[in-house]
Amino acid sequence: MHTTPSDPLQIARELASEFARNVVERERLGGTPKAERDALRSSGLLALSIPTQFGGHGATWRETFAVVREFARVDSSIAHVFGFHHLMLATVRLFATPEQWQPWFELTARKHWFWGNALNPLDTRTVVKDHGSWREFSGKKSFCSGATDSEMLIASAVDEGAGGKLLIAAIPSGRTGITLHDDWNNMGQRQTDSGSATFERVRVEESDLLLDPGPLSTPFACLRPLIAQLHFANIFLGIAEGAFEEARGYTRNEARRWFKSSAAHNTEDPYVLGHYGDFWVRLQGARLLVEQAAQALDHAWAKGAQLSAEQRGEVAIAIATAKVAASRDGLEICSKVFEVTGARATQASVGLDRHWRNLRTQSLHDPLDYKLHELGDWALNQRLPTPTFYS
Amino acid sequence: MHTTPSDPLQIARELASEFARNVVERERLGGTPKAERDALRSSGLLALSIPTQFGGHGATWRETFAVVREFARVDSSIAHVFGFHHLMLATVRLFATPEQWQPWFELTARKHWFWGNALNPLDTRTVVKDHGSWREFSGKKSFCSGATDSEMLIASAVDEGAGGKLLIAAIPSGRTGITLHDDWNNMGQRQTDSGSATFERVRVEESDLLLDPGPLSTPFACLRPLIAQLHFANIFLGIAEGAFEEARGYTRNEARRWFKSSAAHNTEDPYVLGHYGDFWVRLQGARLLVEQAAQALDHAWAKGAQLSAEQRGEVAIAIATAKVAASRDGLEICSKVFEVTGARATQASVGLDRHWRNLRTQSLHDPLDYKLHELGDWALNQRLPTPTFYS
Amino acid sequence: MHTTPSDPLQIARELASEFARNVVERERLGGTPKAERDALRSSGLLALSIPTQFGGHGATWRETFAVVREFARVDSSIAHVFGFHHLMLATVRLFATPEQWQPWFELTARKHWFWGNALNPLDTRTVVKDHGSWREFSGKKSFCSGATDSEMLIASAVDEGAGGKLLIAAIPSGRTGITLHDDWNNMGQRQTDSGSATFERVRVEESDLLLDPGPLSTPFACLRPLIAQLHFANIFLGIAEGAFEEARGYTRNEARRWFKSSAAHNTEDPYVLGHYGDFWVRLQGARLLVEQAAQALDHAWAKGAQLSAEQRGEVAIAIATAKVAASRDGLEICSKVFEVTGARATQASVGLDRHWRNLRTQSLHDPLDYKLHELGDWALNQRLPTPTFYS
Amino acid sequence: MHTTPSDPLQIARELASEFARNVVERERLGGTPKAERDALRSSGLLALSIPTQFGGHGATWRETFAVVREFARVDSSIAHVFGFHHLMLATVRLFATPEQWQPWFELTARKHWFWGNALNPLDTRTVVKDHGSWREFSGKKSFCSGATDSEMLIASAVDEGAGGKLLIAAIPSGRTGITLHDDWNNMGQRQTDSGSATFERVRVEESDLLLDPGPLSTPFACLRPLIAQLHFANIFLGIAEGAFEEARGYTRNEARRWFKSSAAHNTEDPYVLGHYGDFWVRLQGARLLVEQAAQALDHAWAKGAQLSAEQRGEVAIAIATAKVAASRDGLEICSKVFEVTGARATQASVGLDRHWRNLRTQSLHDPLDYKLHELGDWALNQRLPTPTFYS
Repeated sequence: MHTTPSDPLQIARELASEFARNVVERERLGGTPKAERDALRSSGLLALSIPTQFGGHGATWRETFAVVREFARVDSSIAHVFGFHHLMLATVRLFATPEQWQPWFELTARKHWFWGNALNPLDTRTVVKDHGSWREFSGKKSFCSGATDSEMLIASAVDEGAGGKLLIAAIPSGRTGITLHDDWNNMGQRQTDSGSATFERVRVEESDLLLDPGPLSTPFACLRPLIAQLHFANIFLGIAEGAFEEARGYTRNEARRWFKSSAAHNTEDPYVLGHYGDFWVRLQGARLLVEQAAQALDHAWAKGAQLSAEQRGEVAIAIATAKVAASRDGLEICSKVFEVTGARATQASVGLDRHWRNLRTQSLHDPLDYKLHELGDWALNQRLPTPTFYS
Repeated sequence: MHTTPSDPLQIARELASEFARNVVERERLGGTPKAERDALRSSGLLALSIPTQFGGHGATWRETFAVVREFARVDSSIAHVFGFHHLMLATVRLFATPEQWQPWFELTARKHWFWGNALNPLDTRTVVKDHGSWREFSGKKSFCSGATDSEMLIASAVDEGAGGKLLIAAIPSGRTGITLHDDWNNMGQRQTDSGSATFERVRVEESDLLLDPGPLSTPFACLRPLIAQLHFANIFLGIAEGAFEEARGYTRNEARRWFKSSAAHNTEDPYVLGHYGDFWVRLQGARLLVEQAAQALDHAWAKGAQLSAEQRGEVAIAIATAKVAASRDGLEICSKVFEVTGARATQASVGLDRHWRNLRTQSLHDPLDYKLHELGDWALNQRLPTPTFYS
Repeated sequence: MHTTPSDPLQIARELASEFARNVVERERLGGTPKAERDALRSSGLLALSIPTQFGGHGATWRETFAVVREFARVDSSIAHVFGFHHLMLATVRLFATPEQWQPWFELTARKHWFWGNALNPLDTRTVVKDHGSWREFSGKKSFCSGATDSEMLIASAVDEGAGGKLLIAAIPSGRTGITLHDDWNNMGQRQTDSGSATFERVRVEESDLLLDPGPLSTPFACLRPLIAQLHFANIFLGIAEGAFEEARGYTRNEARRWFKSSAAHNTEDPYVLGHYGDFWVRLQGARLLVEQAAQALDHAWAKGAQLSAEQRGEVAIAIATAKVAASRDGLEICSKVFEVTGARATQASVGLDRHWRNLRTQSLHDPLDYKLHELGDWALNQRLPTPTFYS
Repeated sequence: MHTTPSDPLQIARELASEFARNVVERERLGGTPKAERDALRSSGLLALSIPTQFGGHGATWRETFAVVREFARVDSSIAHVFGFHHLMLATVRLFATPEQWQPWFELTARKHWFWGNALNPLDTRTVVKDHGSWREFSGKKSFCSGATDSEMLIASAVDEGAGGKLLIAAIPSGRTGITLHDDWNNMGQRQTDSGSATFERVRVEESDLLLDPGPLSTPFACLRPLIAQLHFANIFLGIAEGAFEEARGYTRNEARRWFKSSAAHNTEDPYVLGHYGDFWVRLQGARLLVEQAAQALDHAWAKGAQLSAEQRGEVAIAIATAKVAASRDGLEICSKVFEVTGARATQASVGLDRHWRNLRTQSLHDPLDYKLHELGDWALNQRLPTPTFYS
């Protein structure tokens, strides 16, 4: 593509500006953004969060999410699969042994592997058959973001023999028996390939399983859902920032003064300015909450096994707070920007509605009402959230 | 199609249920809903607002808008061109002489004519050339909703020789020199054909022109923009009602209880019920405002030439109030319904996002902020709005 | 005072204008508005809802609440005790036999009795001792609005011998053993005397008890809580209308143009007009909901014993809808009016804050959240509310 | 009082806990909180922002505002006069010469002077008479917060001979001709003594005048209005935090479960928790914005004369953003807390309404709409605010 600069954020900016060229058209078509995924591979950014000793950039979560947000401003589908790739890496880091994740990290950095998701714990249709030294995963799984065109997959299955315990494995996406369906056709996040997968007697070795320390086993392992939640907050904020920026360009360059306005130019209209002031206040508040949450996460991450349940809980609160604000203010901005652009900005070629559709879609991952419930229990009763895959 | 019942609202319900079958697919494709437009023709509803002595149903505006809203619940594109058809009929009724509009009414009722719009007064690119006994219209015109596949067109042009006066004519859509472009590809209201038209030296006879009493000439003639505004309020309300109904079906039949809910079933979840309570309060308020405005319009319409400027102004206030409420509460509902349906309702086949896209698009016809400004001038200063094509 | 006009609303307007003279000072002082209560007595309006055959005005609920709202615009304390007086009359009408309520109605109309409230069913501290042919009420009761300076009292007590059943009686306020405490000193509704009462072995005869058909016994009897709820909706709306009117006067006569405004005068400032437009839309929506609910109530009231549970339920929905809208929009208006009056309108002598304090206080009678819950159950599940003293 | 600790925030906490004892009663009475002002004097906190070399604590603005906020949580009147005292000190620091402000700082620290405000630049009734080597100030001045019981006063007057230029002086409050009226009786901030002052031929020496560099003369001098604005943001946030804390105590210790709640205890009610979650998100967002703005101010303050107009402008944006958020979210919280406490929390002795009244009153200092306008001009047009006494 061009001489690769060394600063990941600068690499991301250049990629984002490439992605922006045809994002409106790609978003309409849906499907797998193969060229863009390959550009991510060759950019080296798939190794962004991998420590330097394993060949990665050694980025903090704050830096990793800065890149996610950079992408989300123009293409939140790519931002999502990119961020989830790093979440999958964090999953093996947190749930498995160094003997497992260290080679995976090295191979990912060296071979530009893309990791996909087939973990959805609320979808219990994939079950385990135990063969002693190995196991079989069989069944369906929904919402498998980024599984298509991935090299590795994080998959989960219910082990009914073990009381319904959730087993999680890291397996090559191409392993026999795995079919990734091209059936994601939704109103938003259209290039995330968040469709379904089928597992037909997929052989899972002991060494594929993330058992030590295992899912949500220690306070440190319980950072995993928090990384997912902060990823969402960054997606929402990035989308809102993108909507704001595109609206701003439109208001300045395209929109016309309403004939009843007291202002000489549309950019001086009191109501237009009032809306932009409101957008600004919302964005700034969400930005600070998201950034503070990332700092809290990095701090907790650095503690590793020393992290206490209480410290983990405080990070959970910071992240939930950021997510609620980014979701609520983001939706408001993505819908209200049209008040400052006017009717002509509804042209499909402008693509301004994709921000609302993308944010509205992604924000349904888990209910906002129950995040507020959780935060309320903290605010009122000083009870920290019980770790689950959503808290 | 089937034995036509005599009640227009019943006819509309049956049509709407037909339109609902493929609305999601049609909405995706955009373009002209030819089959549906022809179904409207054969239903007789294009004569809905035409007085019985000219072969129509003699419906009041309240009845006419009840049909518009019925359509808007499933297909707001069809609702829009249908309502605008009746607005075009009102335009000739209000701006022209009985010698002009009576034959047009009769022909429309008899031949099932569809009237389209090419009036946009803010687009001044179409100009008049005066040839004495006839005139030529030449230029471009944007936002020509329903012009494609219409028999008649209301077109406007600027008469620079007469100080920039706006001339409005009713002309056959097929007249030489008229080209209707298939260039409407927007994020919402995708089957309204609201693209552009080109007029190339289109001959306009004296008898085509709406000069007596002419546009916005008398308080009665000034009802025209109010009919347009109330049409929009009905579109917005109908869309919101449709979003509510579809969400309700989804919540009851498809959505799943969140695993943290204290309720046994999703339909008993306290937050889900809280949202539905909120939707209900918003819808009921908007409904009453829209219905009261329709009654006020019918009352004013019945007054005809006796209508005073003050009486007209009071109708304007009632309609502006209804429009603001339907727009604000409708947008809120169309975005919030997803909180009660969950992530799976974002599937493209569900089509639930079309309501927000349709309402967001149509609500930009003229700025909400300036409607509030207008209402504020009434509420604070007791000043009634000055009639324009938007007030 | 002056020649009494025959139209109750006109009488109310004149009284209201009297009450307005010192309402700010009285509101500050709290306590019993004795002079105003006596003016109500001599106005004849205490017989407003009493049928003409018993010496009353025979007003419908719609007319009765129009008077409540008229008072609420300036003095919502008086509006509350006045409306509750009529609620007490409705209570005996609905829960007792004609042999009981007819003389009470006649005496009330003839002697200008004021009825007070000591019914609070959630306060179970007052208990019944059964002496066979008579009973004793003993204990405390909170929130006894309008009990002070009343002639008659509706009191309730728990009959533990009858499984905790609530007995309700109509008794003279001066009966031996009743002490009405002057202990209402709250942030709003300061002249409603909503303090506590003590019952010390108060003798209650069989003929004092409202047993046939008894509380909440039939659909018709179940209108009682709905009358209370619609009363609140009218109080809230009246308060909001009053706040709007006083703000309007202040903006026009006192407030100054902000030095950064593009407008020549404060009354033309775009933001000021935008706020007034918003207030107007909110008020109009609430007004229509409140008026429609009153019509539904009058319709149900006219049905009497023929009223079905379902018909009663539909009235409940209409009234709950109106109450939620009046509460939410009213609070918004009462707080936002200061944005259009500016800092000097915070002078205690202006009294503009009393509207927020009054509405905020009265709106806590029962939780808004559970009204929305109830409406949600209707909107989603088509379940009508189960009658209670709050639904 | 007790052994004074050395940490100013700790001193403030102890003072605040003293102030809390009778704040509800004092707030009702209004007037000058003489005992509390004297406690502030003896605490040494009047020297909080004074550099150590002049005998002060040398606190940063961040530290100073932390104390303001600590007070505002219980008594926002005291918080206001305390913060304005430090604003007055900043005023002489920024507008006058070291020869002027250094002795004033020393005397203030040594003698525990309290500085009051008589500067209101929008009130132009006080005028200058020029006597050559000295001047006379004569006229009225409104909104003189903290002037009563102060040792020094910052006063302004219009010099009509100099084209209406505003002259600002620092003068002893007891100087001949100055009358401070005890006429502040407003709905909130009742112990701020924000009433009026009269100047009758008050002699003002050259050395009293703040002329070098003079008001709003340099970017550094232009920090003065920003300090005022950030002071307000801290007042608003502190009030909201106080309302939240008091509501929390009430919900946990006093409020009762609604009989329809699905929860066993009020503190588990889903709607109660939802509200607390919402309060938390709002408070956290406002806190971060306020803290970030304080850091920006301290950074700019440290730059002194090196501060560029652009750097000053960026601080202005950060502070305006914080102020808008604290004002909007604070008002929402102060009104909504009642939903989670219930009706009994309206008792005057609880004093929960004072938060809304205090915030509503203080937030009218300058219009929120024009702050949004200013922020919109930045967000849309990248134009930094022009310095005025309000921006």
